[in-house]
Amino acid sequence: MAKLPATVMEALLKKAGAKRVSESAKDELNNALKKKVETITQKAMTFSKHAGRKTLKKEDIDLASG
Amino acid sequence: MAKLPATVMEALLKKAGAKRVSESAKDELNNALKKKVETITQKAMTFSKHAGRKTLKKEDIDLASG
Repeated sequence: MAKLPATVMEALLKKAGAKRVSESAKDELNNALKKKVETITQKAMTFSKHAGRKTLKKEDIDLASG
Repeated sequence: MAKLPATVMEALLKKAGAKRVSESAKDELNNALKKKVETITQKAMTFSKHAGRKTLKKEDIDLASG
């Protein structure tokens, strides 16, 4: 799984309103997001297959992330 | 909110098992992840405040993303 850089994690947390962020919090957000991506992707693939497609589309992600 | 690049989205989706991915699916994953980050961060800030801290720590993210 691609690792998102810690600087991106920090930027995301600060944009979302966090003032101070520990190093381990960035790692943990990275882990949490990787898990979310896996869950969303697996659900989305089920939905695209259900719709008779092999390509993941916007509506699959939409349904999977809701 | 920082925008994660479409190439990163595609890599994440493919690492998670997707074979083919439309452009709009990458955008939608980006939107979904931004919302998740906002939700996780806001919950984590509530938890860090509750623990008498001003710094977001691993355990706050953990609790918020569970």
